[in-house]
Amino acid sequence: MVRVNEHYLKLAAGYLFPEIQRRVGSYLDRHPEARERLINCGVGDVTEPLPASARNAMKRAVDELGDPTSFRGYGPPLGYDFLREAIVRHDFRDRGIDIDVEEIFVSDGSKGDAGSLLEILGPDNRIAVADPVYPVYVDTNVMAGTTGNANDDGAYEGVVYMPMTRENGFTPDLPSEAVDVVYLCSPNNPTGAVLDHDALGRWVEWARRHDALIVFDAAYESFIRDESLPRSIYEIEGAKSCAIECRSFSKNGGFTGVRCGYTVCPRALEGVTRDGRRVSLHELWTRRWQTRSNGVSWPVQCGAAALYSEEGRAEVRSLTDFYMENVRILREACESSGLEVFGGRNAPYAWVGCPDGISSWQAFDLMLERANIVTTPGCGFGCCGEGYFRVSAFSPRSAVDGFARRLESLEWMACS
Amino acid sequence: MVRVNEHYLKLAAGYLFPEIQRRVGSYLDRHPEARERLINCGVGDVTEPLPASARNAMKRAVDELGDPTSFRGYGPPLGYDFLREAIVRHDFRDRGIDIDVEEIFVSDGSKGDAGSLLEILGPDNRIAVADPVYPVYVDTNVMAGTTGNANDDGAYEGVVYMPMTRENGFTPDLPSEAVDVVYLCSPNNPTGAVLDHDALGRWVEWARRHDALIVFDAAYESFIRDESLPRSIYEIEGAKSCAIECRSFSKNGGFTGVRCGYTVCPRALEGVTRDGRRVSLHELWTRRWQTRSNGVSWPVQCGAAALYSEEGRAEVRSLTDFYMENVRILREACESSGLEVFGGRNAPYAWVGCPDGISSWQAFDLMLERANIVTTPGCGFGCCGEGYFRVSAFSPRSAVDGFARRLESLEWMACS
Repeated sequence: MVRVNEHYLKLAAGYLFPEIQRRVGSYLDRHPEARERLINCGVGDVTEPLPASARNAMKRAVDELGDPTSFRGYGPPLGYDFLREAIVRHDFRDRGIDIDVEEIFVSDGSKGDAGSLLEILGPDNRIAVADPVYPVYVDTNVMAGTTGNANDDGAYEGVVYMPMTRENGFTPDLPSEAVDVVYLCSPNNPTGAVLDHDALGRWVEWARRHDALIVFDAAYESFIRDESLPRSIYEIEGAKSCAIECRSFSKNGGFTGVRCGYTVCPRALEGVTRDGRRVSLHELWTRRWQTRSNGVSWPVQCGAAALYSEEGRAEVRSLTDFYMENVRILREACESSGLEVFGGRNAPYAWVGCPDGISSWQAFDLMLERANIVTTPGCGFGCCGEGYFRVSAFSPRSAVDGFARRLESLEWMACS
Repeated sequence: MVRVNEHYLKLAAGYLFPEIQRRVGSYLDRHPEARERLINCGVGDVTEPLPASARNAMKRAVDELGDPTSFRGYGPPLGYDFLREAIVRHDFRDRGIDIDVEEIFVSDGSKGDAGSLLEILGPDNRIAVADPVYPVYVDTNVMAGTTGNANDDGAYEGVVYMPMTRENGFTPDLPSEAVDVVYLCSPNNPTGAVLDHDALGRWVEWARRHDALIVFDAAYESFIRDESLPRSIYEIEGAKSCAIECRSFSKNGGFTGVRCGYTVCPRALEGVTRDGRRVSLHELWTRRWQTRSNGVSWPVQCGAAALYSEEGRAEVRSLTDFYMENVRILREACESSGLEVFGGRNAPYAWVGCPDGISSWQAFDLMLERANIVTTPGCGFGCCGEGYFRVSAFSPRSAVDGFARRLESLEWMACS
């Protein structure tokens, strides 16, 4: 009889975004007239057009497939070298970081990479995640069997949750217990907090001391405006022996629907077997891609590479500037409504404290029903997210302006 | 300390195609003058231009991303309904098979799907594969921990290999021992054999009797020319309660570089937990996609859907006809050289017996060195592939003609 992966059965309540969709759908069923009025500043999905550099490159790539002399079939499983070379040059070498082309693994996006990484790690690792955090890190670990069951709060046994709170400035403390794999996301989703050189340096030192692996999610690095902040963990000395970095074209190039990202897996990275042998993670990750993938779509890789052209880099800068202006407007609207706001200065997300005595989902429902504005409830990102909501810069300007106006005139307290 | 997935360390010799590349590279290093002359009829990678219907749809889709009113971000994790509906209509309902849109899961190709399926199955399942077979089924099981170690022949403990031989007409016999998951590929890669209704019916009956799961790889169904042969396992009564089917646009639409495929996971499919509870595989597979993926690239899905337009279907037919003419030429060249040939009548692969006393790799090296033609050694597909090589229809006509001429004049016996 075919047996199932029972770890899936541990997965607690539905994934955050489907639950938001369900609540919005249910509200609109009851109030169909609100459909036109609805403004969503919840989901972290880009809204501005794809840069012309990427579009032109993708269309040229499609045309090439129509000509037998330039047709391309299966690509290299790890990505085309022209894209890997552009990545290495612009994202790393130009910033003084020595990363090799063979250390770049092109994928169809970070969401997939976060789960795929677990394929090369054993199920015996103890993981640590920030709380609140992007739910995919934990959910993929549940599915891979790294965790125990969920408790009533939706937290999983066996996972070390590292609180990010007002009190610690949303910078997680080093774990006091034994941990093998740590997920760090900086700029952070959902809090918008960014680890500075000192904080990241402490993490790298800790990981090296404990032979632990840091999975560093830098999907939002292009929104960093403070030049003193690190954009890559490899800006920290020694990180190449303890960290994998995940990057994405989703937010900087508007690729959420086009699908492209990459991981950096340095050659120096090692894990251990049960009997203590050291094994190259780079070799396992390479083997994983060779066996599991035929690479990313040819026109998509051409589009991603075009983001590194001179035109492309200017377009990315202009796109991220646009969203950073959005988040400024949203942040200030929250502040002028008397809410406490964090993040949103080097990240496209602002992390907003709910008014006293109102929970995340209550705030969500209240904003949905009274102002027809959609946010993301903080508790969906972990226990320490309770009492917050996330607002996202990824909306058209008119929506952001409308959201700001409605939030400013929202009556929080007159509960029905 | 971070622990690795030690199952990876069981993986035997390099993956087949990298080894072929290595041998060809080494030969060309020694004989650079042969580079121009080399003809590759080994790899199953398409060579003809992408159909105009797909190209036009992809370029329109890219243009839509340049306009804020038609921009698309994250797509649905399981695929856009317009594509799923086209699949259901043309691949199933028009052929009298009742499959629902919710049972279609769009992916970036079958290679990924084969491994991803193991995520929802437990590591305790005993698997059976045909021998010879596409290596990815076994390699992904090794990585997932379903198998034991490899023996000297490269076969893995714990895997039930089902010989496909001259003697059984390349139709595997039902396993005599307990098996939970069976991989069937029809038309078969590499042998080109196709399971008829009777044979497939026996498998479905067997799977239902044993609560086993059939993973049915139908990537080559569009090459079936004999209308009496089944193109989908769901043509067999009862298959919806025991089979997942994998399909791909790689070979029919020339999508090996564009990357799109799909699985059919019927709602009726169930697996069991250790304590005997029955669990919906459709629900687990849905959860897998929601958590692990943000769906397939927007222009790629538009391109795939265009293959189902009237123009697209005519182009697919013409493409597959072209490759079927190629395989006829190759098959006849092998026959006229005195070699025994199988397959190649309802499949783009011909499966060719090596001359007596010559092994697969010897034949490979001999053809490479004496005629500068590249094939795929049969032993790369499993122990029972020893003594055969695969020739592939996926080449330009001029290459196929050249291959045929050189094969016909090859001196097999005068070994140096």
